[in-house]
Amino acid sequence: MNDQPMQAHHSRSGDGRPCMPQAARKVVAHRLAIAKGHLDSILHALEKDQTYCVDVLRQIKAVQGALEKAGQITLESHLRVHVATAAARGDVESMVEELMDALRYR
Amino acid sequence: MNDQPMQAHHSRSGDGRPCMPQAARKVVAHRLAIAKGHLDSILHALEKDQTYCVDVLRQIKAVQGALEKAGQITLESHLRVHVATAAARGDVESMVEELMDALRYR
Amino acid sequence: MNDQPMQAHHSRSGDGRPCMPQAARKVVAHRLAIAKGHLDSILHALEKDQTYCVDVLRQIKAVQGALEKAGQITLESHLRVHVATAAARGDVESMVEELMDALRYR
Amino acid sequence: MNDQPMQAHHSRSGDGRPCMPQAARKVVAHRLAIAKGHLDSILHALEKDQTYCVDVLRQIKAVQGALEKAGQITLESHLRVHVATAAARGDVESMVEELMDALRYR
Repeated sequence: MNDQPMQAHHSRSGDGRPCMPQAARKVVAHRLAIAKGHLDSILHALEKDQTYCVDVLRQIKAVQGALEKAGQITLESHLRVHVATAAARGDVESMVEELMDALRYR
Repeated sequence: MNDQPMQAHHSRSGDGRPCMPQAARKVVAHRLAIAKGHLDSILHALEKDQTYCVDVLRQIKAVQGALEKAGQITLESHLRVHVATAAARGDVESMVEELMDALRYR
Repeated sequence: MNDQPMQAHHSRSGDGRPCMPQAARKVVAHRLAIAKGHLDSILHALEKDQTYCVDVLRQIKAVQGALEKAGQITLESHLRVHVATAAARGDVESMVEELMDALRYR
Repeated sequence: MNDQPMQAHHSRSGDGRPCMPQAARKVVAHRLAIAKGHLDSILHALEKDQTYCVDVLRQIKAVQGALEKAGQITLESHLRVHVATAAARGDVESMVEELMDALRYR
């Protein structure tokens, strides 16, 4: 509970600070909570006989858009706080590889 | 051959018969419920100081992948039940325009 | 006007009649030709020392957008001419599977 | 060699070096040249009556995949050479905003 993930990551600089800044965590959490509420309403609609597939498609796309936005905010925070500081810290290669891998992930 | 789903949609009579076939609704609901659980675990992680942005990015991508799959199942069902029958029913233009609009939506 | 495109595809007789309607082929070809010209200008820029990565990224995204649009036009034509007529013709399953497979392809 | 785009970008450090490293430019150019050849073969196919829409869709997706890969290589190079060095150079905000803008572009 005492920051191992972060320290593992920041072992080179050893600063032990939280990785994702609190402000970004709050914004992303807010957006994901909204996406979750939206998912709930789709699940509710799917219980009804008269639900129309195209409406479900549209709702799913809307949630995907919300997740895309949450991912962008996360990425932007990561670039600012961790990637932009990599040369100063000396871990450019591992930071870039890790991020490229995460962006490709699906 | 008495396919209520189609008639429900196209009669626009509000008779309450299903449009999206029940089997597809169940499969999509199952996948969306899993995606929702996954979103919940990201929300939980975002409450912790030591959460790492790249892990959040990866988790969001995973949920997006799950939604993509749910969307594909919805689309496939729609193509089979409603689009493929459009010429026989006589509403090709409206069905195709509606679907293209939904697929472009973001 | 008398449905050759459909028969050409489904007869599998190799009679050489068009599958993709000529109008759609022309529109898609026009857009792909523009995309090709755009690719050419990126290739030209990449020969220069002073090319900036972010400009290359933006140009590549623009070409991807053009291809996305060409794909949408192709899909719309396919839905209208081949998928919407599948029930009347009796090959719903193969048409839907084929299309879903193509849409998933990457 | 005194091309404003680069210098404009690097005016803060004033080093005037080419922005996108030559190695990355060559790899990206190689991939884009292949994508262009692929586009050419689609254009050739689109001149023929018997071209099938689903094949065109698949080919377009393949070119999109090639462009996606070229974009990834460009991004990776940009992260390594320019973004990772931003804190050391003192232009984190402008670098991150510029990149987020380019990634959102469509």
